[in-house]
Amino acid sequence: MIPTIEWKDGLIRMLDQTKLPTEIVYVDCRDVETVAQGIRDLWIRGAPAIGIAAAMGVALGAREIRADSFDAFYEEVERIAFKLGATRPTAVNLFWALDRMKAYVRAHREEGIAKIKEGLVRESQTILDEDIAVNRAMGAWGAAFLRDGDTVLTHCNAGSLATGGYGTALGVIRAAVEAGKRVRVYADETRPVLQGARLTAWELMQDKIPVTLITDNMAGWMMKQGKIDAVIVGTDRTVANGDVANKIGTYSVAVLARHHGIPFYVAAPTSTIDLTIASGDLIPIEQRNGREITHVFGRTQIAPEGVATENPAFDVTPARLIIGIVTEKGVFRPRDIRKLGDPNVDLDAIRLRP
Amino acid sequence: MIPTIEWKDGLIRMLDQTKLPTEIVYVDCRDVETVAQGIRDLWIRGAPAIGIAAAMGVALGAREIRADSFDAFYEEVERIAFKLGATRPTAVNLFWALDRMKAYVRAHREEGIAKIKEGLVRESQTILDEDIAVNRAMGAWGAAFLRDGDTVLTHCNAGSLATGGYGTALGVIRAAVEAGKRVRVYADETRPVLQGARLTAWELMQDKIPVTLITDNMAGWMMKQGKIDAVIVGTDRTVANGDVANKIGTYSVAVLARHHGIPFYVAAPTSTIDLTIASGDLIPIEQRNGREITHVFGRTQIAPEGVATENPAFDVTPARLIIGIVTEKGVFRPRDIRKLGDPNVDLDAIRLRP
Repeated sequence: MIPTIEWKDGLIRMLDQTKLPTEIVYVDCRDVETVAQGIRDLWIRGAPAIGIAAAMGVALGAREIRADSFDAFYEEVERIAFKLGATRPTAVNLFWALDRMKAYVRAHREEGIAKIKEGLVRESQTILDEDIAVNRAMGAWGAAFLRDGDTVLTHCNAGSLATGGYGTALGVIRAAVEAGKRVRVYADETRPVLQGARLTAWELMQDKIPVTLITDNMAGWMMKQGKIDAVIVGTDRTVANGDVANKIGTYSVAVLARHHGIPFYVAAPTSTIDLTIASGDLIPIEQRNGREITHVFGRTQIAPEGVATENPAFDVTPARLIIGIVTEKGVFRPRDIRKLGDPNVDLDAIRLRP
Repeated sequence: MIPTIEWKDGLIRMLDQTKLPTEIVYVDCRDVETVAQGIRDLWIRGAPAIGIAAAMGVALGAREIRADSFDAFYEEVERIAFKLGATRPTAVNLFWALDRMKAYVRAHREEGIAKIKEGLVRESQTILDEDIAVNRAMGAWGAAFLRDGDTVLTHCNAGSLATGGYGTALGVIRAAVEAGKRVRVYADETRPVLQGARLTAWELMQDKIPVTLITDNMAGWMMKQGKIDAVIVGTDRTVANGDVANKIGTYSVAVLARHHGIPFYVAAPTSTIDLTIASGDLIPIEQRNGREITHVFGRTQIAPEGVATENPAFDVTPARLIIGIVTEKGVFRPRDIRKLGDPNVDLDAIRLRP
């Protein structure tokens, strides 16, 4: 599988996912501004991958800081983190990764700036490596909920391309396939940016996992015809009451799944869980430019000049529509997500069994 | 409003709707083959408009028939009707219009071939004129169900462009606006062929009716936020039990509307009602080429080469999800649709009141 992002010879090499699937183009980011642009313009997307990019962005930016005191150095690190944090508001991994990088700096204050700069590069690599390990653990837990012969619907791309590798929702599917189950996938194309058509279909074809591409508005009809056995999607932020923000259209799929009695799962590494927010109503939802709707790939005009649009990039699926949230610690009821951070809770007692 | 189709100096002038909204291109059809191509390739679409095009196609083709007996003439008319009927299977208006034209020929057998040829041109014009009158009557009945200040969601294009003029679902909205109600519209873009983005948004902007374009997968989220007061769509075929075939995605919108307690209406001129079919499960659903999904406008590739697709052009919304069916005879419960053809039924007793 092609790496989404890697640290290479002192720069960040990022796959420009906006060019997929017709072109495979890498961009070398040599400064924080380019990393921020890459996140904002969707060269890289997917909550875990955004977190990794931000962490690497801090490491990259920190190398260029000229400061002779720790305080001056830390102030610059905060400035870099602020710049990277201003790119996209919804995915919590961005802020989680930036906080972790800042915490690293503070924790290693006594080692001196030069050592810290080296340590930040290692820390960002650790975040990447951990992400892959987390995805594999999620895959193992989640795959138990898919049966041999199941057809699974997914929305947007929560795959290898959205993470350090392997994927969250697609990681669960990969793990089921690796366990010898025959699993087929329906991929929603996921307008307006078409992550399902461009990325999910492409990723699964690379892995020879059978995939059928449909437009978003076909999902309900496929369910009605009994063609879908389960739905699994990723998440950009899961909050204390178990509500989940994910790519626009996820909420509709969840309602449709409920109407048809089809189990709806969310794959949520704990890095996407934000217990500081009580309910989904409070998650900031990014509104993007309407040109994403009126012009495909910014060039093929499909709507009248000047038409009004709304373009929320995400929606919120309430906990009551979700059967299980797949994490690296197990699969849980949405209402139990708040207990994951509590060391006194016996997770084994609240894990869902297939 | 620009005419969708007209008979002009012995030929059929058709607006090529695949070019909208960026270009306004008319095609002059001089033979039946070109009319059939226009229907198949979606230059003209929308159940009532397809019916009108088919009727004009019969009139056009009949003029060229060289036959010296009525039976030979009628055989050729049937051949023309068969050719036009083979273009698209789902919209019943196509078959309704062809049957009506054939019935005209049989009914005027004694007048002679030359007179019949002239009569067929008039009959196709009558179908067009009646369609506009029917749309206006539907508008008057349906508009009573929309309140001042309502925001109405629609899917695909059931407007002036889908009919002889005025529109079915959009006719209801137009009539409400003409009655002085402030009505706003959300238009689903309606993948894969984008009739909502290209046609509905364009039509409403021409008429200065406020319209906001969204992707299909946003409809549920807009409902969740309380932004939608009612849904109204057109239909390609309404059958005896009140089930309705319409553009793919309609079924999902109906499920979402039900989940949110939003009334879901279908605008169905009686020419789209097919009492010969008992239930929606039996309606033939056209499957179109997957290239409509993988390539926008046949040229902008948005998915990997060779990906599997499903591309049903229509889906079926069961009667239980529909609050009211708007016809030119009034608004009715889906289960009462079968009574419309019965002269002994007092329609006034079964009409829905706002």
